Amino acid sequence: MKKVNIYVTLRESVLDPQGSAVMGSLHKMGYAEVKDVRIGKYLELVISDEVQDIDAHVNEMCQKLLTNTVIEDYRFEIEEAVSQ
Amino acid sequence: MKKVNIYVTLRESVLDPQGSAVMGSLHKMGYAEVKDVRIGKYLELVISDEVQDIDAHVNEMCQKLLTNTVIEDYRFEIEEAVSQ
Repeated sequence: MKKVNIYVTLRESVLDPQGSAVMGSLHKMGYAEVKDVRIGKYLELVISDEVQDIDAHVNEMCQKLLTNTVIEDYRFEIEEAVSQ
Repeated sequence: MKKVNIYVTLRESVLDPQGSAVMGSLHKMGYAEVKDVRIGKYLELVISDEVQDIDAHVNEMCQKLLTNTVIEDYRFEIEEAVSQ
């Protein structure tokens, strides 16, 4: 088994109202040192070893289902040998 | 400026219906090799250098606002010297 960690973030040019709301709350709580907050998604996939080209498969899954490539960027890393 | 990346995941013992739904969709799309999907949050904070104990501050923010420690775990990493 391999574990794949996928990080999905909004593109730089896209406004992040959820992040702005969280930053506003942090400021109200006294954390004035926080200058920016962006919120994204973090996905952990466990994938069986039988797949040959895991990189290509993960890219396909990201582009077809897991992310919206118009407004989101993604990157992922593959960890070896997860026991499940 | 420092960039802080925070990864929030559901605790192992907590069911993840969103992850299950995504896994179901991936299976329908033919990706039978996917054995598990867990979905979490990924936050990027930019924090000013004037703060002394950034670790303690980030822990406080996570526990008070950013995560629900009853059902979620978090970890974070601090990157130095982000120009903003």
